Amino acid sequence: MSDSAGNVFSAIAQVLEQRKQADPATSYTAGLFGKGQDAILQKVGEEAVETVLASKRGERGQVIYETADLWFHTLIMLSHHGIEPGEVLAELQRRFGTSGIAEKQSRGG
Amino acid sequence: MSDSAGNVFSAIAQVLEQRKQADPATSYTAGLFGKGQDAILQKVGEEAVETVLASKRGERGQVIYETADLWFHTLIMLSHHGIEPGEVLAELQRRFGTSGIAEKQSRGG
Amino acid sequence: MSDSAGNVFSAIAQVLEQRKQADPATSYTAGLFGKGQDAILQKVGEEAVETVLASKRGERGQVIYETADLWFHTLIMLSHHGIEPGEVLAELQRRFGTSGIAEKQSRGG
Amino acid sequence: MSDSAGNVFSAIAQVLEQRKQADPATSYTAGLFGKGQDAILQKVGEEAVETVLASKRGERGQVIYETADLWFHTLIMLSHHGIEPGEVLAELQRRFGTSGIAEKQSRGG
Repeated sequence: MSDSAGNVFSAIAQVLEQRKQADPATSYTAGLFGKGQDAILQKVGEEAVETVLASKRGERGQVIYETADLWFHTLIMLSHHGIEPGEVLAELQRRFGTSGIAEKQSRGG
Repeated sequence: MSDSAGNVFSAIAQVLEQRKQADPATSYTAGLFGKGQDAILQKVGEEAVETVLASKRGERGQVIYETADLWFHTLIMLSHHGIEPGEVLAELQRRFGTSGIAEKQSRGG
Repeated sequence: MSDSAGNVFSAIAQVLEQRKQADPATSYTAGLFGKGQDAILQKVGEEAVETVLASKRGERGQVIYETADLWFHTLIMLSHHGIEPGEVLAELQRRFGTSGIAEKQSRGG
Repeated sequence: MSDSAGNVFSAIAQVLEQRKQADPATSYTAGLFGKGQDAILQKVGEEAVETVLASKRGERGQVIYETADLWFHTLIMLSHHGIEPGEVLAELQRRFGTSGIAEKQSRGG
């Protein structure tokens, strides 16, 4: 799964790019882009609260579901700014030196 | 970048797994695990607000930085529940059929 | 206005107390109590985000409207716990010594 | 308590008004005004999350404490906009017709 999963964010980002130009009536995402940044940010905030509450309930499936919603709406926000998910992943990589870690682990470290 | 980026989440998840057992004094993350779930969720909420405010300011670098913080703290929350990031990515993939989309796009669709 | 305003929170609290026993179909608030604590907390979180966004837009009427929504939903949460708004106001008074301040100001201080 | 409590918000608002002009080094609130609107809104968001988490823990004293923090930071936000707490209370009164309710109840309704 990890390889295809690795491309999920950029695949979604490409879909979002297309939906930016689409008729707001055609999809949830096109509608959200049509309403503008504050509607997108409202959803980011709402999904963060839903994630926190799902985590407190401790039901595994709900935590996965709500975190997916939260990540998805942050991808919409990034798309609004013309930022690619890879730029955020690169920032994480920079901080945690994860390419080095991954390398070391692939060598059995 | 996309390939190594694709593995960033799982590489971070592996580091987090190690920090769960570590002395809370040794790192920020070990300290957060030591404080327990509410401290982690407080940070998820705080980073969501910081992301929203960075987005409103519209400074590209800050949006990237704060989104990285938000994603990182959701990874800590997932780790607290023993959920792998790939499970959330699989949920996104299921919803958006992104493997299909990626396939179609690689065929020039 | 200040006198009647001073009693707004306790008047609302009394209405909320009645709605707790009411048929969830009869009012928004009865419906929210019927859905349970997480639905109430979800609304507290959503209204906080709406307040933040209204504040950033800087439209005075919207800031008033959204803050009213936020305070209202915190009153529902307090009611869920059987906490009277006066207990929170007393905590604020304790911290800021506002009774002393009010007294001093009534003496022209 | 209810009468003096009724004036807590306006008493705090008066104190806040003074702190707006004060040296940011002299008090927490003056410091927050000095940092600007985003710092205030960040705190509103943080306190909302703390309130939600305290509510989930269900410890009465913590719910009171965190709600006090949340209300206090919304008062700072209102002060930033030059909005008096009474304007928000009037909006609540308008919606819920609480002056009418209070009147009816004082007649034993």
